[in-house]
Amino acid sequence: MTNPALAAVLNDKETLELRELPLPPIGDDDGLLRIEACGICGSDIAQFRGELAWGHGYPVIPGHEIVGRIDQLGRHAARRWNVQEGDLVTVDPFLACGCCDTCMSGRYINCTNNWGDKQQSYGFIGTEYAPGLWGGYSQYLYLHRNARLYKFPAGVAANQAVLFNTLGGGIRWAVTVPKLGIGDTIVIMTPGQRGLTSVIAAREAGAGKIIVAGRKDSYKMALARELGADVTINFQRENLLERVKEETAGRLADVVLDLTPEATQPVLDAIEIVRPGGTVVLAGSKGARTVAIPTDTLMWKDITLRGVVGVGHREYRQAISIIASGKYPLHRLMTHRFPLREAETAIRTLAGESPVEEPMCIAI
Amino acid sequence: MTNPALAAVLNDKETLELRELPLPPIGDDDGLLRIEACGICGSDIAQFRGELAWGHGYPVIPGHEIVGRIDQLGRHAARRWNVQEGDLVTVDPFLACGCCDTCMSGRYINCTNNWGDKQQSYGFIGTEYAPGLWGGYSQYLYLHRNARLYKFPAGVAANQAVLFNTLGGGIRWAVTVPKLGIGDTIVIMTPGQRGLTSVIAAREAGAGKIIVAGRKDSYKMALARELGADVTINFQRENLLERVKEETAGRLADVVLDLTPEATQPVLDAIEIVRPGGTVVLAGSKGARTVAIPTDTLMWKDITLRGVVGVGHREYRQAISIIASGKYPLHRLMTHRFPLREAETAIRTLAGESPVEEPMCIAI
Amino acid sequence: MTNPALAAVLNDKETLELRELPLPPIGDDDGLLRIEACGICGSDIAQFRGELAWGHGYPVIPGHEIVGRIDQLGRHAARRWNVQEGDLVTVDPFLACGCCDTCMSGRYINCTNNWGDKQQSYGFIGTEYAPGLWGGYSQYLYLHRNARLYKFPAGVAANQAVLFNTLGGGIRWAVTVPKLGIGDTIVIMTPGQRGLTSVIAAREAGAGKIIVAGRKDSYKMALARELGADVTINFQRENLLERVKEETAGRLADVVLDLTPEATQPVLDAIEIVRPGGTVVLAGSKGARTVAIPTDTLMWKDITLRGVVGVGHREYRQAISIIASGKYPLHRLMTHRFPLREAETAIRTLAGESPVEEPMCIAI
Amino acid sequence: MTNPALAAVLNDKETLELRELPLPPIGDDDGLLRIEACGICGSDIAQFRGELAWGHGYPVIPGHEIVGRIDQLGRHAARRWNVQEGDLVTVDPFLACGCCDTCMSGRYINCTNNWGDKQQSYGFIGTEYAPGLWGGYSQYLYLHRNARLYKFPAGVAANQAVLFNTLGGGIRWAVTVPKLGIGDTIVIMTPGQRGLTSVIAAREAGAGKIIVAGRKDSYKMALARELGADVTINFQRENLLERVKEETAGRLADVVLDLTPEATQPVLDAIEIVRPGGTVVLAGSKGARTVAIPTDTLMWKDITLRGVVGVGHREYRQAISIIASGKYPLHRLMTHRFPLREAETAIRTLAGESPVEEPMCIAI
Ligand SMILES: [Zn+2]
Ligand SMILES: [Zn+2]
Ligand SMILES: [Zn+2]
Ligand SMILES: [Zn+2]
Ligand SMILES: [Zn+2]
Ligand SMILES: [Zn+2]
Ligand SMILES: [Zn+2]
Ligand SMILES: [Zn+2]
Repeated sequence: MTNPALAAVLNDKETLELRELPLPPIGDDDGLLRIEACGICGSDIAQFRGELAWGHGYPVIPGHEIVGRIDQLGRHAARRWNVQEGDLVTVDPFLACGCCDTCMSGRYINCTNNWGDKQQSYGFIGTEYAPGLWGGYSQYLYLHRNARLYKFPAGVAANQAVLFNTLGGGIRWAVTVPKLGIGDTIVIMTPGQRGLTSVIAAREAGAGKIIVAGRKDSYKMALARELGADVTINFQRENLLERVKEETAGRLADVVLDLTPEATQPVLDAIEIVRPGGTVVLAGSKGARTVAIPTDTLMWKDITLRGVVGVGHREYRQAISIIASGKYPLHRLMTHRFPLREAETAIRTLAGESPVEEPMCIAI
Repeated sequence: MTNPALAAVLNDKETLELRELPLPPIGDDDGLLRIEACGICGSDIAQFRGELAWGHGYPVIPGHEIVGRIDQLGRHAARRWNVQEGDLVTVDPFLACGCCDTCMSGRYINCTNNWGDKQQSYGFIGTEYAPGLWGGYSQYLYLHRNARLYKFPAGVAANQAVLFNTLGGGIRWAVTVPKLGIGDTIVIMTPGQRGLTSVIAAREAGAGKIIVAGRKDSYKMALARELGADVTINFQRENLLERVKEETAGRLADVVLDLTPEATQPVLDAIEIVRPGGTVVLAGSKGARTVAIPTDTLMWKDITLRGVVGVGHREYRQAISIIASGKYPLHRLMTHRFPLREAETAIRTLAGESPVEEPMCIAI
Repeated sequence: MTNPALAAVLNDKETLELRELPLPPIGDDDGLLRIEACGICGSDIAQFRGELAWGHGYPVIPGHEIVGRIDQLGRHAARRWNVQEGDLVTVDPFLACGCCDTCMSGRYINCTNNWGDKQQSYGFIGTEYAPGLWGGYSQYLYLHRNARLYKFPAGVAANQAVLFNTLGGGIRWAVTVPKLGIGDTIVIMTPGQRGLTSVIAAREAGAGKIIVAGRKDSYKMALARELGADVTINFQRENLLERVKEETAGRLADVVLDLTPEATQPVLDAIEIVRPGGTVVLAGSKGARTVAIPTDTLMWKDITLRGVVGVGHREYRQAISIIASGKYPLHRLMTHRFPLREAETAIRTLAGESPVEEPMCIAI
Repeated sequence: MTNPALAAVLNDKETLELRELPLPPIGDDDGLLRIEACGICGSDIAQFRGELAWGHGYPVIPGHEIVGRIDQLGRHAARRWNVQEGDLVTVDPFLACGCCDTCMSGRYINCTNNWGDKQQSYGFIGTEYAPGLWGGYSQYLYLHRNARLYKFPAGVAANQAVLFNTLGGGIRWAVTVPKLGIGDTIVIMTPGQRGLTSVIAAREAGAGKIIVAGRKDSYKMALARELGADVTINFQRENLLERVKEETAGRLADVVLDLTPEATQPVLDAIEIVRPGGTVVLAGSKGARTVAIPTDTLMWKDITLRGVVGVGHREYRQAISIIASGKYPLHRLMTHRFPLREAETAIRTLAGESPVEEPMCIAI
């Protein structure tokens, strides 16, 4: 109420400016979050560069992987979200309506009701919509009555908590969707930030063998092994199919998860190394390229090719449970942190424009 | 806004009074429904008699199986619900918050956020909560912003539409929960209103053999056959187990659904007539009696005993699809209709206090 | 034992010859089937032309969609298969071992244990394996101890029974795999024999809207409507996407099943007309062509692309249940029957080499 | 062929006698196992005491949890089982036929085809059936052509391998059946041998909180914590419901697994401490007692009560994967080993008739 919020506003592409916005009054049904950390991912880069296909414009406060503490809270909101002031929470970025057919089916990400045709996700809603504080590159976030909050137990640090989204994705793509279970073999291509959280997810689900395949023997390959990968394969140097046969006594992989950006060959490799009846999960954008898929092979092998997007309620809860357990050195994935006023540097670092080696998870 | 709504208000147990309530102003997010029909079920009787365990009091407008036409509608509400004035719709009775852990898991019925500890279902919310129009025994219903609406296609009549709740229940209990599929055998005990909609549900799911078991050769048994039951068994006169063996070539039933109120023997019968690996669904309240269950039999037969309550989003959509198809003579289940001012007679008729034979579905 | 069996033996490609083979002695564990009908499908054509990729050779008795009556039966076999002499039965063509990892997972089709690396399916096992009677183009079939039999109830005619395989496929591809349920919309491309049994399967599963799309307004399109299709779309004349939107109030299809042989465009169409979160099932061989699939679309729409092959135990049982119900005019699908000595004409007719119009299901 | 096999034969109840049986000749389809270890469980005690309900008689070689090395092997059997001489393997005790409806549904335990009405499980087949070597209390076991074998990787010791059955059960009951997943809470009552393997199973499946409840603070409670239980509750001293609420922030347990023999109260406790929508798994025989279950509570809480028996193919594979991983100190569960000639002492020790404290897993 008193001091305004400092925020990094994207006024136009590649034009990020620090600005002060007034804090809004909070009623019975909404709240205000004091932001402690905001993760940056590939979408932030695309948004910064003006390459995002979605139909929202500028100015906007970016940032959708948001962790903070409850600063103000309406009395109805407190009961509904089951939180109180001072709690460390995260927010599902999608501000879905909760009452449409899509939301009732649990597909919040496809709901388009709250802001007309515009993107309805934190980090992508224009500042012209009052009260403007819709993004994570800011000191404060407005908690809309339709926000869906997740509380962290006491003792969790913000820079581990900020991995909730990436880890939730790993759980959904590596475990929920392909029904990965105890003793199963999964091949994860390739070990970026999401590949590494997928290793954690597969480990938690009791996978019998976790194989990470990548193009080089990087720090990330080593980190994959440290987090629980049983085997790493450099497919530039080794024959992927032969190695997978070797590691599975000829059975091939139950699940293959492709996260590789741009390259289309991994999709074809995945179809080769998955066992008959197995599942290939596609979560790496190919920049609108098509892939020449032998659909007869899909048939004869009776396999499932599944595209995935987003994170569900169950996976968010599971991610928070894993973070809270303290079982994994998640800080190893959070390689860089920047103050709010260096938001642009943070984005450019993740984009590989700075000399930093192998940036992975970056937060403000 | 102009004329008030006439409603039957339950001021105390067994004290129903006609009263006029003002129509509320409608904003961007809510709406008003002109009620065309309201189904009555066992809960209405218990509520009328003051025998309901839930912690809400009087005065209250009863009625939770509500069908009507959109009368007024906020502009945001129109987009969210995807309806317009004049549309025939029904309403999920549970006014869940949409943002709590329970709601996000799709368990709207267990959400308790909107009215504190009180029951949050249409038909059970006290008139002291503005604007009071929370029940179906009325000319108008207030459409709260958290209401979840289902639209009927053009051409559906209100007195068929009003079966949405019972049919949704039949689908959930006979099909969704026990995963009833093509060629499966189901035994339904016994043929009340919900037993009959379960017959329809099982028919739609492609059940190979639908057996309805009841205590007497009533009109309802005949109607069960007409709606699609392959076999009816009067278990007072015939040996249920022997007959089920006969009808299934000794395999026994894949699914048994017990809807019988009060009697506990059907639960034990169900455990006997279900096949190893099969499912027994319990949807008939036993008035707080316990049932002496041989749990070792559950083990050796590897069977599932599943208690069920409520209807989910998918089943409401499915019920409406069946109603709209016009494939079943649903009007045969809607045996009596009463005007609003005879609400008490309607309840007493369903309760069997009037001389009417075999009342089943009754609406106002 | 007395008379030998007359069979049509494929000695080399396009060289079918009538031959007599002795009937084998039957022990405790095996049996002999007197064949009443044998369906012909595309695999028969490929086998006849020598275009089948599988590694078995000549001579061989073709025919894998076999219906007949138990002629002789060992005493152990009788108990195991639960049949007796005179029963009308069909046989799962795959003679799997029953004890390997693949079989124990229910994937009988992938078991390769019984005949070494050779194909282990009835209709494809060489006559050099004693007793030679491994195919349906014959008066008798040897029932190996590993055969899996399905009995038809009394009253079913062989020329309806012979559709068990095609109908089992329809159930698996249209219903089991995509989890098609009450009220769902399915688009089936295109209406060949398997498309038509898929219509029956979808009808049985309670689909809300069954749309059949094809290239012309043929007899098969009319038959699709007769069997239960709600809508047929000629996609040469109409815009498929627009029509599907129209028919689904903009929701698009829950499931799309592509059975089109050779053409790759239907796969791309399927990805367009399926709703976000929906499933595309691929069961039409593209003759080893690849399809340029926009995998990003699979991701953003969160959709499943599933290749399928074969029929499972549950679907065989379900197919037989539907056939036995007599609910569908299955004889309409069985357009031609030939005597055993005209086996070659039968194959050439199905292959379109004869002047017969729109042959569909053909049996010997 | 050369030396006979020494076996402990149960000639009558409580009458175990060492005897020599000739080794049978091995053909193409069967094999012979040199037994290295045989686990003993409660069924062995009941069988020894003549208290087993099943209809087989004496004489019989008991023992159904069998681990050994392939001694002889037919050439077809080698391919089918994918093993060779010297391999360490275990055997699914149920010798199912593989071809009946029950087997094709994967319910091998319910198949009754091989030995007529008699029990068809290793350890329960009478010696009158040639070649007599049907039990684990022996130096050798006959590998029937219908046996289903599981191979252990090199390096696994027999006294860890022998836990495959108990661990497979733990996986099925704690994980597969109730669909336990990452972050879920499970309460396991009580910590016997199967309770402890259930802890391992739940840990592998990523359970968020594993609570073990028992009647006293025993060695087994301590071992439960060592194996991965997060919390142990002594329900004689603490209020179980209150403690579960405390540990779950009021949510209650997602899954409750009752393994307690004889006592019926744990079933009622389980219904109380499971959350709405949760699952109670019953795997503890109550000695034919009934339990007075409030079925209305099952309904209002929408919960599943599931009886379980046996282990499936997938769980056997998973158990072997866990054993082979070497992640758990399984030798801690194998508290006693006896030589074959002390089989009776072994049984009496497990039955608590000897002064040994807290025997758990015992093998010969
Ligand atoms: Zn992101
Ligand atoms: Zn929505
Ligand atoms: Zn009701
Ligand atoms: Zn809620
Ligand atoms: Zn075929
Ligand atoms: Zn096999
Ligand atoms: Zn045992
Ligand atoms: Zn069997």
